[in-house]
Amino acid sequence: MRLWRNARLATMASGIGAPADVASKAAILVRGDRIVHAGAESDLPAFDASACETLDCEGRWITPGLIDCHTHLVHAGNRAKEFEMRLNGASYQEIAAAGGGILSTLRATRAASIDQLIEQALPRLDALIAEGVTTIEIKSGYGLDLESERRMLGAARKLATLRPVHVHTTFLGAHAVPPEMAGNADAYIEAVTQQMLPALAADGLVDSVDGFCEGIAFSPAQIGRVFDAAAALGVRVRLHADQLSNLGGAALAARYSALSADHIEYTDEAGVEALARAGTVAVLLPGAFYFLREKQLPPVELLRRHGARIAIATDCNPGTSPMTSLLLAMNMAATQFRLTVEECLVGTTRAAAQALGMQQDIGTLEAGKFADFAIWNIQDPAELVYRIGFNPLHSRIWRGQ
Amino acid sequence: MRLWRNARLATMASGIGAPADVASKAAILVRGDRIVHAGAESDLPAFDASACETLDCEGRWITPGLIDCHTHLVHAGNRAKEFEMRLNGASYQEIAAAGGGILSTLRATRAASIDQLIEQALPRLDALIAEGVTTIEIKSGYGLDLESERRMLGAARKLATLRPVHVHTTFLGAHAVPPEMAGNADAYIEAVTQQMLPALAADGLVDSVDGFCEGIAFSPAQIGRVFDAAAALGVRVRLHADQLSNLGGAALAARYSALSADHIEYTDEAGVEALARAGTVAVLLPGAFYFLREKQLPPVELLRRHGARIAIATDCNPGTSPMTSLLLAMNMAATQFRLTVEECLVGTTRAAAQALGMQQDIGTLEAGKFADFAIWNIQDPAELVYRIGFNPLHSRIWRGQ
Ligand SMILES: [Zn+2]
Ligand SMILES: [Zn+2]
Repeated sequence: MRLWRNARLATMASGIGAPADVASKAAILVRGDRIVHAGAESDLPAFDASACETLDCEGRWITPGLIDCHTHLVHAGNRAKEFEMRLNGASYQEIAAAGGGILSTLRATRAASIDQLIEQALPRLDALIAEGVTTIEIKSGYGLDLESERRMLGAARKLATLRPVHVHTTFLGAHAVPPEMAGNADAYIEAVTQQMLPALAADGLVDSVDGFCEGIAFSPAQIGRVFDAAAALGVRVRLHADQLSNLGGAALAARYSALSADHIEYTDEAGVEALARAGTVAVLLPGAFYFLREKQLPPVELLRRHGARIAIATDCNPGTSPMTSLLLAMNMAATQFRLTVEECLVGTTRAAAQALGMQQDIGTLEAGKFADFAIWNIQDPAELVYRIGFNPLHSRIWRGQ
Repeated sequence: MRLWRNARLATMASGIGAPADVASKAAILVRGDRIVHAGAESDLPAFDASACETLDCEGRWITPGLIDCHTHLVHAGNRAKEFEMRLNGASYQEIAAAGGGILSTLRATRAASIDQLIEQALPRLDALIAEGVTTIEIKSGYGLDLESERRMLGAARKLATLRPVHVHTTFLGAHAVPPEMAGNADAYIEAVTQQMLPALAADGLVDSVDGFCEGIAFSPAQIGRVFDAAAALGVRVRLHADQLSNLGGAALAARYSALSADHIEYTDEAGVEALARAGTVAVLLPGAFYFLREKQLPPVELLRRHGARIAIATDCNPGTSPMTSLLLAMNMAATQFRLTVEECLVGTTRAAAQALGMQQDIGTLEAGKFADFAIWNIQDPAELVYRIGFNPLHSRIWRGQ
């Protein structure tokens, strides 16, 4: 058993934490990898102090371990040269001609071994871990053939054995049509649903299934086929929805009881209502909004009015959000989308856990949940959202260690 | 003597570096704290290898040490609660009534001892140092009385003895009218010019003098009096100019051969022309632009057309840019202001050195300059600008160590 005492707790069980929880004398008692008690020291259950390691938090704040619930962390190469070309005035055609765009990431990822994928992903994962992230979702989707997607998901699984972090894997075969099947999206969806998904699920590599529903990617009908295939295997789904236009992606996701609908800048009230009713989490991705200099804000007021759950993630990816800071994603959500401090903190803990279907195990500091938490050098939880490019992490506990 | 070999150099002597400099086999030879050679290994001068420590950079990129040429790093307290209140819908009046705004920072800073100021500034300084920053400008301006301003500048000087970094101190007495002299700006300017500045300069605490020229602060005439006083003492000046409106601040700065004119969102073509002619550096502060959600972009095209020098800084301060990442400031300058990768890199090295009047000693990798440099785990310098919330620093050398 281990006891962290003399702490202030943002339990995130309700809002940031009930008054009793944030009292200056709070404690977390852990047995093995689970929380036994998180609350006032005076409410600690009886336990054998001689068999318990005690740590003095010196009044520091503790939050649940942060959860990054939408990333494309595993990929090869980067798009820095393309970024430079665009700033120098190059057109999209010129960038494509120079080998840029998603195809460049596809080529690099297909050419990379699993060890190379892991080696390139580790610094990004370490950056997130250094900020108190204890759970991360990682998508495939830059392989777009069975073996390459398997390598990406295998790399994601392997990362979880190399670092003290939980990885939720997502099969994003329906990210784009691979170049060898250009113009033949339906045939590619057939391969995704009939070959790739069943094989990868059988390998235990698929915790959830994702798709990109957009004019430049797949239609609602095509995504529906992917979701049907996932449902047949008993796998939960999520969706890149309504990022650049309103194709009804959020409502589609809700219809399939998706874990999350992500981006959703263009989602209308009917879509928001559907999300709220289905309990599908709205995952906002302010890094992509920032990097693409988008103008269309996500429907935050509608999400509030209908009581939808809101999560925040980095969307870490080489093309539209080369971001590896979840703290910065929180600041961007507050600064750009006017989310409140509480919404930002809920969005990277409790709601992010719901977006991964893991709310029974993580996301709050409550008895019975995994002992995943972050200890901070701050005077107030608002500092985690307020600062820009600053990491006040004191230490990080994953599964009680 | 020390030799860093097998490196790629972004010397920043001209653009990012001449082709010869960026060859894969380049080296930096250092004697004591100065660079003897920075360029191709094949061009190394003869030296006694037995008396020289050699380090293999394994092909890594080296840039000049980064320079953050505009910060308010020394201050007490933070404004996280005010940030939270504003997101919760509080008005400026409510925030002021709750003790927020610049006055809250003033009160906290006046109440802090020099040791407390140092203790609170160190984590911010360490965050910048961890990103390869080797020189930083630090302003006073939250004391607004002689003793408090002396304590702020004394803390800034002391920081330079606690960490391997050069600190340029700036007296910003003309930041705001202190509450005890409200409505009496001219009398306060009298105190700034007749008492505070001469005393602090005599203490050796003033490397340059700054002011805030704005409707909510001081008029051009009042700033002129401050600049006259500085000129009488032989101290160079700089100016917070044209951030929220065009008061002709840039032209005023140029008239006094200022080292820099900072912010300049509202500067017009005449102002830009004046800056370019005077060699006054335009310091862009994308963190404040972002945090305040400003819409008026700085006149980047005009700066280019007239050949003005452009630097980039964090503006680290608790009220409008609680930012401690110069790498992120570069990304924000590119993303928001469309500065090129080269402009961003020049803006935190060569041009930033000019903004501090230190271009003879720092800002490029050239023989004769201080051996201040940063070694990076990157494939291309563009990555320093492209990534968001990621620090690829391998190691950092300050004055040859
Ligand atoms: Zn995504
Ligand atoms: Zn400033």
